[in-house]
Amino acid sequence: MRVSATDTHVDVLSTASELLDRLRTRGPGVHCITNTVAQNFTTNVLLAMGCVPSMTLSNEEIGDFVSRSDALLVNLGTFDRERREATMTALDAASQRKLPWVLDPVLVDRSPLRANFARDLIKRGPSVIRLNLAEFAALAETEISPDAAKIYARDHGIVLGLSGETDLVTDGRRTISIANGHSFMAKVTAMGCAGSALVAACLAVEKDAWLATVAAMLILGIAGERAAVNAAGPGSFAVAIIDALYSLDQTTIRQMARIS
Amino acid sequence: MRVSATDTHVDVLSTASELLDRLRTRGPGVHCITNTVAQNFTTNVLLAMGCVPSMTLSNEEIGDFVSRSDALLVNLGTFDRERREATMTALDAASQRKLPWVLDPVLVDRSPLRANFARDLIKRGPSVIRLNLAEFAALAETEISPDAAKIYARDHGIVLGLSGETDLVTDGRRTISIANGHSFMAKVTAMGCAGSALVAACLAVEKDAWLATVAAMLILGIAGERAAVNAAGPGSFAVAIIDALYSLDQTTIRQMARIS
Amino acid sequence: MRVSATDTHVDVLSTASELLDRLRTRGPGVHCITNTVAQNFTTNVLLAMGCVPSMTLSNEEIGDFVSRSDALLVNLGTFDRERREATMTALDAASQRKLPWVLDPVLVDRSPLRANFARDLIKRGPSVIRLNLAEFAALAETEISPDAAKIYARDHGIVLGLSGETDLVTDGRRTISIANGHSFMAKVTAMGCAGSALVAACLAVEKDAWLATVAAMLILGIAGERAAVNAAGPGSFAVAIIDALYSLDQTTIRQMARIS
Repeated sequence: MRVSATDTHVDVLSTASELLDRLRTRGPGVHCITNTVAQNFTTNVLLAMGCVPSMTLSNEEIGDFVSRSDALLVNLGTFDRERREATMTALDAASQRKLPWVLDPVLVDRSPLRANFARDLIKRGPSVIRLNLAEFAALAETEISPDAAKIYARDHGIVLGLSGETDLVTDGRRTISIANGHSFMAKVTAMGCAGSALVAACLAVEKDAWLATVAAMLILGIAGERAAVNAAGPGSFAVAIIDALYSLDQTTIRQMARIS
Repeated sequence: MRVSATDTHVDVLSTASELLDRLRTRGPGVHCITNTVAQNFTTNVLLAMGCVPSMTLSNEEIGDFVSRSDALLVNLGTFDRERREATMTALDAASQRKLPWVLDPVLVDRSPLRANFARDLIKRGPSVIRLNLAEFAALAETEISPDAAKIYARDHGIVLGLSGETDLVTDGRRTISIANGHSFMAKVTAMGCAGSALVAACLAVEKDAWLATVAAMLILGIAGERAAVNAAGPGSFAVAIIDALYSLDQTTIRQMARIS
Repeated sequence: MRVSATDTHVDVLSTASELLDRLRTRGPGVHCITNTVAQNFTTNVLLAMGCVPSMTLSNEEIGDFVSRSDALLVNLGTFDRERREATMTALDAASQRKLPWVLDPVLVDRSPLRANFARDLIKRGPSVIRLNLAEFAALAETEISPDAAKIYARDHGIVLGLSGETDLVTDGRRTISIANGHSFMAKVTAMGCAGSALVAACLAVEKDAWLATVAAMLILGIAGERAAVNAAGPGSFAVAIIDALYSLDQTTIRQMARIS
């Protein structure tokens, strides 16, 4: 079933599981500005989901790549002048084509300079900001609470995808908690970055940014639970979650989702 | 048995399988100019085959590294000014030592600028260009057909290694199709880039660039088939293909090769 | 039991195994200046050990990150101007906070320029230099022998962690050999780089740099032996060693250590 963005009682599960097939059928192009630590894992996550990832950071050609994509990820890891310029060029191209984009303000709690740059980028109108609780507190200069997140989302007209023990997705009006996931997810580098790329992929095939974010975080959390079943540690887990994403089906999503 | 380059009925299988042992015995140095997404996987593929990979992109020291290597890979992914300069320095060093080199014009179909740079590089005389069909069409500004590939190879005096459902290797005079491989290979990032690095490795131990290219693509395709046997998805497949390359033997190559 | 730094008959095993728990309990921040090939694997090794890794190379923000860390790794792979500047900024921050740091002069035997830069860095006073025999010979411009290593360590007031068939750790006064490890460790890229990051992590929780280095190299070697038990090749080995590091316990270290 197709869900209306104005319906507050959306069948979230239905859309989330249906998005799996949209990704695999349409194979959206997702351009990722992301850090070198995360590039390989992020690309493999997107490929496992049927997407067409691209990763160039060159200011000269990034416009061409973004123009041929369906969504954009801007991740601030390994932040430098060259990347800032490429980011601006990419955002211009995205704006021209009205592409949705996701901001992942990685580790803004570790660097005031990076937090300032993130705040500047937010003025450029991302559809979604995906981050963890410490990053949110640093970015919003606020305490960490569901209410603070709702207010921030509403004031900025964006969707917040907050990852933590329980994930929280809010656009200020609609808020949902996702209890899926596994502790190994915090033991594998780039898991959050790949999650943000998955949000971008879902935005490419679903206009309702809140629903797209819920779907992406639900898919990753459930894949994580399935991957953990046979994992002997974070090494085998990182491999198994790619396999789990690849083989995930709609029935599994409906059965395993723990949302409230 | 050793195969003559002028023999059109070469025992391709014999050379391809024999090259496995040459790589392991001689351990050629292969310098790779490649994108950051592909660096780790490419290095591990080369190490699994007994090679000595190096990956620096610094213009200041790349000459030193190339001069101490036996072959060079130039992959255009993450193309920028700094990398272009380093590429020129590397080609100068390779030219001085008469080292064979491979061009992998990744995603030239996505950026006209990148395609132009690739065409400039081809004037510097690579032994082999390894690419997929869409990249070939963009590079050669032609339709995709075996005949177009043969003409291009002959006109440019190079070997073309075209990957696809079936791989095609041609120097304009000799053409071979390789049906080995597995669909998971398109689901793991850097598989093509690593394949190009393997071509460079084979060039280091085999003067006939056509035979070296056939051998490299055959080895990778067969390793892919063996890896797929127990893989649960593209995650475990990416791990298993490294193991398969490491343990591949001549008998397996002879038994599994599907060439025509 | 806690071991005194002046006790030449230290219970090395006791400290090494105890360090496992200190890492997991304290979760030290380790900032890594390392090459793009090694970043992902290094991060996952540190996460598996309970550490909090960070990897930015941007000159503008690296000071912030180092100031919030407990130890620093300087690895010379992919050496360029930008990285040299960031390294100097990072060392200034480390010096101000009196943080211990490790130098990994990767492949200085392949580039005289890189060797010179390594020698300049040594004047800045690393706690430990971790490298292989060929790198040591190039750096110290000497032959390879345990005595040469002892003299170099004593003259420079540093700890040398030499990896090879048998590892050697010396501060000029105390010298130990570690026979643990597995041949697959040389077949996985970034294994040495990750080992150096582990040394940095141990320095963050143990003031005696010699003991910290012994512990790190022992932990990695034993994890390597355990990983090899079920590995089918270097691909599955690279995954299994992350799992082995994650699940390693003190009893295993005491039982498997082969030191002399």
